[in-house]
Amino acid sequence: MTPRFGRLADGEAPAEGAESFATLLAEGGVRVERIASHRAASPAGFWYDQPGTEFVLLARGAATLGFADGVRVMAAGDWAVLPAGCRHRVVATSADALWLAVHLPSG
Amino acid sequence: MTPRFGRLADGEAPAEGAESFATLLAEGGVRVERIASHRAASPAGFWYDQPGTEFVLLARGAATLGFADGVRVMAAGDWAVLPAGCRHRVVATSADALWLAVHLPSG
Repeated sequence: MTPRFGRLADGEAPAEGAESFATLLAEGGVRVERIASHRAASPAGFWYDQPGTEFVLLARGAATLGFADGVRVMAAGDWAVLPAGCRHRVVATSADALWLAVHLPSG
Repeated sequence: MTPRFGRLADGEAPAEGAESFATLLAEGGVRVERIASHRAASPAGFWYDQPGTEFVLLARGAATLGFADGVRVMAAGDWAVLPAGCRHRVVATSADALWLAVHLPSG
């Protein structure tokens, strides 16, 4: 019952072209994750195709996500709900992109 | 399988002293919520005492949370994990405080 605290900006700073991932909370099949992206992009032809819904908030920086039918440019403060099975990829990010991702249990 | 998008800054602006709540995603017992707080404070003697764990990110502004053993001052970008049964209250917020809260299923 003791609270825990942290700063989203604290954590690993990935090399250029890379992303770093850290789990902030994992409980009951839910995972809250910090993702730092440094001019990152998914490999050509790679798609995330996840069994559970993901909620993602871009807390800092800028990013472009790719979907089957196009791209979505995101600015700091923008959020996205990526339903289970919604294929998506990271097209590009700024050097300082910082995400909060919430992975829901798979149905 | 269609993604949804939004901006955390978009939404109801509460009156001074109040908070507004909006559910961004509710699925499988998990609820992702936008909370805007405008110089808000929990009523005297009121404590949140929730059956499920809550993860909260202060995305904008400043706030002070109260706990049984003291207070925690939070700045934009700070996060907190409030385990089930961890009594807490809002002591104070700035006029522009904006939270992303994730309510996990109760154990």
